[in-house]
Amino acid sequence: MNGYNGKILRVNLSDDTISVDEPDESFYRRYLGGRGFISYFLLKELPRGADALSPENKLIFATGPITGVPVAGSGRNSIGAKSPLTNLYGDGEVGGYWGAEFKHAGYDALIIEGRSKNPVYLWIQDGKAEIRDARHLWGKTTGECEKFIKEELGDRSIRVAQIGVAGENLVRYACVVNDLRHACGRCGIGAVMGSKRLRAIAVRGHQRVELADAEAISSMARWHRTNFKKSKWLSNLSAHGTAGGLVAFNKRGALPTRNFREGVFEGASQISAEAMEAGALKERRGCYSCPVRCKPVVSIGEPYNVDPIYGGPEYETLASLGSLCGVDNLEAILKANELCNANGLDTISTGVTIAFAMECFERGILTKKDTNGLALKFGNAEAVLQLIEMIVRKDGFGKVLAEGSTRAAQAIGNGAEEFAMHVKRQEIPMHEPRWKQGMGLGYTLSPTGADHNHNIHDSQFERFLVNELNSLGVIEPLPLNDLSAAKVRLLYYGTTWRHMLNCLVICSFFEFALQQVVDLVRATTGWPTTTFELMKIGERCLQMTRAFNIGQGMSKEEDKLPERFFTPFPSGPLKGGKIEKEAFEKARDIYYAMVDWDKESGAPTLGKLQELDIEWVARV
Amino acid sequence: MNGYNGKILRVNLSDDTISVDEPDESFYRRYLGGRGFISYFLLKELPRGADALSPENKLIFATGPITGVPVAGSGRNSIGAKSPLTNLYGDGEVGGYWGAEFKHAGYDALIIEGRSKNPVYLWIQDGKAEIRDARHLWGKTTGECEKFIKEELGDRSIRVAQIGVAGENLVRYACVVNDLRHACGRCGIGAVMGSKRLRAIAVRGHQRVELADAEAISSMARWHRTNFKKSKWLSNLSAHGTAGGLVAFNKRGALPTRNFREGVFEGASQISAEAMEAGALKERRGCYSCPVRCKPVVSIGEPYNVDPIYGGPEYETLASLGSLCGVDNLEAILKANELCNANGLDTISTGVTIAFAMECFERGILTKKDTNGLALKFGNAEAVLQLIEMIVRKDGFGKVLAEGSTRAAQAIGNGAEEFAMHVKRQEIPMHEPRWKQGMGLGYTLSPTGADHNHNIHDSQFERFLVNELNSLGVIEPLPLNDLSAAKVRLLYYGTTWRHMLNCLVICSFFEFALQQVVDLVRATTGWPTTTFELMKIGERCLQMTRAFNIGQGMSKEEDKLPERFFTPFPSGPLKGGKIEKEAFEKARDIYYAMVDWDKESGAPTLGKLQELDIEWVARV
Repeated sequence: MNGYNGKILRVNLSDDTISVDEPDESFYRRYLGGRGFISYFLLKELPRGADALSPENKLIFATGPITGVPVAGSGRNSIGAKSPLTNLYGDGEVGGYWGAEFKHAGYDALIIEGRSKNPVYLWIQDGKAEIRDARHLWGKTTGECEKFIKEELGDRSIRVAQIGVAGENLVRYACVVNDLRHACGRCGIGAVMGSKRLRAIAVRGHQRVELADAEAISSMARWHRTNFKKSKWLSNLSAHGTAGGLVAFNKRGALPTRNFREGVFEGASQISAEAMEAGALKERRGCYSCPVRCKPVVSIGEPYNVDPIYGGPEYETLASLGSLCGVDNLEAILKANELCNANGLDTISTGVTIAFAMECFERGILTKKDTNGLALKFGNAEAVLQLIEMIVRKDGFGKVLAEGSTRAAQAIGNGAEEFAMHVKRQEIPMHEPRWKQGMGLGYTLSPTGADHNHNIHDSQFERFLVNELNSLGVIEPLPLNDLSAAKVRLLYYGTTWRHMLNCLVICSFFEFALQQVVDLVRATTGWPTTTFELMKIGERCLQMTRAFNIGQGMSKEEDKLPERFFTPFPSGPLKGGKIEKEAFEKARDIYYAMVDWDKESGAPTLGKLQELDIEWVARV
Repeated sequence: MNGYNGKILRVNLSDDTISVDEPDESFYRRYLGGRGFISYFLLKELPRGADALSPENKLIFATGPITGVPVAGSGRNSIGAKSPLTNLYGDGEVGGYWGAEFKHAGYDALIIEGRSKNPVYLWIQDGKAEIRDARHLWGKTTGECEKFIKEELGDRSIRVAQIGVAGENLVRYACVVNDLRHACGRCGIGAVMGSKRLRAIAVRGHQRVELADAEAISSMARWHRTNFKKSKWLSNLSAHGTAGGLVAFNKRGALPTRNFREGVFEGASQISAEAMEAGALKERRGCYSCPVRCKPVVSIGEPYNVDPIYGGPEYETLASLGSLCGVDNLEAILKANELCNANGLDTISTGVTIAFAMECFERGILTKKDTNGLALKFGNAEAVLQLIEMIVRKDGFGKVLAEGSTRAAQAIGNGAEEFAMHVKRQEIPMHEPRWKQGMGLGYTLSPTGADHNHNIHDSQFERFLVNELNSLGVIEPLPLNDLSAAKVRLLYYGTTWRHMLNCLVICSFFEFALQQVVDLVRATTGWPTTTFELMKIGERCLQMTRAFNIGQGMSKEEDKLPERFFTPFPSGPLKGGKIEKEAFEKARDIYYAMVDWDKESGAPTLGKLQELDIEWVARV
């Protein structure tokens, strides 16, 4: 079967059994990969109400058909499980090389079941898998752990996906880190891995992905290499990484600042890409087969001593650990980023949870008595660094924050919940919903809560209108604050396509036109596929993740945004700007109707499931 | 604007005004052409409950982007109006050259309004339109009429679309005929034209369609010319026309015989393509730019004297005027076909209505007293020929049958309604629903009643699975008598695509792969379109036609098949075969749910209309 190995590795850590599933081609074509696989297995195999941190949960690493194919955007992998942060469907995607290496090792996905008695790691090499002792790795930084593993296995080219101490300690927003610098951040997947006492997965593979039309793939790769710099977006990304947008967001008044109270940060230029480039930046690195190389590698000396092995911060990190906490000390942010990567913490949830605590502190809801003496004022960079260490180790007040902003707010009481900026318990990323209102609506409807990765960036409509949405028949641009039915349609089509990209497990930064994606899938798999079929795969995934959430007891009442976003911005270019609640709720109802979710229960209708040829989902 | 003229001609015959609409590009891209245009204008402009034969009705001739482009399948045009046969949305498509010629004359569509005081014809030439007296043409055969017009205008190359005496006399299944031999048969569009006292539309045009990528179009045309004979389907079509399937259908026991009472006709070989080829067939002719040439031209002498200017019968005609009436006299059928074309009668409705009368006669519901002395026994070829003349002129019993089988059955009474084989008053074409059960379900759900043109042929699944449905993600074949949710999905996707082809106004015989259709539309218009967008255009059209029907007072109770198809075949290879009513009704409910039609009213949901960006339809 072109594009796939046809094998899914299954490892049960409770009884140390290793087996292989070999699904037929129709499985692959229906669910494609990534989020498609994860939602399929979670729906089929996870009991209702299973505790995310219990042995019942399944931890799934998944690739897609493109993974490991020598073309840009193909180095990634998805990791999913029931999320201990949201208690709902959880997954994330991660870049680098691990995904490609895993695919080359002979599998399309990996399902981890049960819980090991002692810490272990997995060693997967060219069609063989082995569970190995990891007691000596427990408690180590990710850097130390990777070094040990590579030495132990005697191969510097091994790729390691691992958790850090945060995952070991079941911090609810612990992440999984590939090659020390690429994080599968959201949904607390690292805590699930920790709960299974699985510290790392080391992989090495030499099998090439069989291609239906290898020549077409080569020519696409060549075209990408030659042409990416002609795209303003990609050449910016290549020059400045995602951080390049920070100053522009600030100028527009939409840089999340001091726990989303404001949109302009006076210290923006100090924490910008340009500031990083002026000193700390050593080089840019990228992912498997990608010519863009958008990822920063930073290194600084005293007093923070940031090690370049941990890469450097993306826009999300600079904003969440910077402006959102009022911190304008770039070096401290670089350190915070290093601590998160060395210990396996999601930088977004970490920053948003700390910013939440800072707002509570400034409002007197928290005092030094609660915070182990830390003065949690906005701008206190040292407190941020200390809190990260405390969260990782669940020390003192860190134990409260390790549960995430929602649970922390419940524990704190006294009205703290008003200041927890989350949707479905997942902390909101650095895209201001009062500015990108389509994204705001997307947060409330996403299966993983506030998550920007399969969501749509209103600010990029013009780009999408050329490359994506226009090809889907959305031919008129709409303002960022528009919430009409036309905007909902745009959100629906856009996120459906993104869900599909999450099944392909392809980088969404690379500006593939829709037809190019179709050509890529055709040349890889040999299937006579079309945008229609690919969009249906996206829809399938959207409906499966929703069905999973409803099955796990989610009510549609959880499809909501924090009240803050319905109140006016106090200052800056967007002063007075807010989401109109009535329009927002109407738009949400329209979305329900468009995607065929039952008005009362919020569940997918049987007719929609039948149309997508997944009637079995209704029975689960 | 590539692919279009950007002009829609509007002619009001009540006050002799001629004007031009110039819609913007988003109109063209949203509705594409053909059925898309017709349903748009009917919804926007026709009052609820308008009488189909009154001046209020609008008669719309529409092309699509491909029309007149030098590539196979592009010579066609659609003609639509509220149907006097179904009292619902009505349209048909017709091949030949008229569509291309009209497009070359500078317009994309033509809307006829009002009613002329005296008979007229329209003369459209290179951007100019003229209403001309047609009193001298009234009452003439189509052959005479075309001859007169060409002489009068002094150009043998003029293309003429016209009605015959049947249309003048408002026979409810009168058709419009292009070039004497290509019929826009269904829905009684010819009667609407007759009600406006418009006998013909003569066109001549020299403008070429502007193309975004003329070179790509040439190469596609070349590819089609070179490759069509490699397709078994197309080379059969080229050799034997649609009639080639008649014997095969009979062998399977599914050739509609004696008013659908049976599926095997003992005289099948006498009325087959092979029989025609053994004598009467003079040549094969085709349509604009098409290398296949699937249309027969026949000529015979005494006693029937069939004139080759009227072409020859298709499969539908051979079966409806042959086996369905028990007639095995090929020469009589050729004459019947000539009479229909010379007088503008739909051969399907004509045959089915006569077969209905024959069954009533054989059962004693009708006697010679009712039939002007005709012995309407199955097999009585002379009676068929006489009845056609009587229907055209509404003479005696012909006046009863000129209303179509449903209204005739009501007039006859005595239980005759049981034997009228129709859906929504449109007579059932020559595809046996007990065999092709997906098609049977499609009949009940089609906006135009029993109509096979935008419907799906279960028997061709294997071909579709390669060329069409597979590319839409329907990857598993299903038996003909399957009525599961998976079959409904296949029907839904297949008919949606067909609706889109009806908007493109492209021939559905030519085996374009989906990607080729996308490429064709891209190369013609320059739009970055995709299968997804094209399928959404099909869906839009499906929903608009449904909304029109509901708006005109149709109840969902009309979504049904005659009882005959739920009773077992009495004989032949399909003996005992029938549609299981419960499964059929369940499948219909599933279809409703899939396409988002309200369970109670059968109307499209607001959410679906919003998703398709046609919220205005809900307001109409």
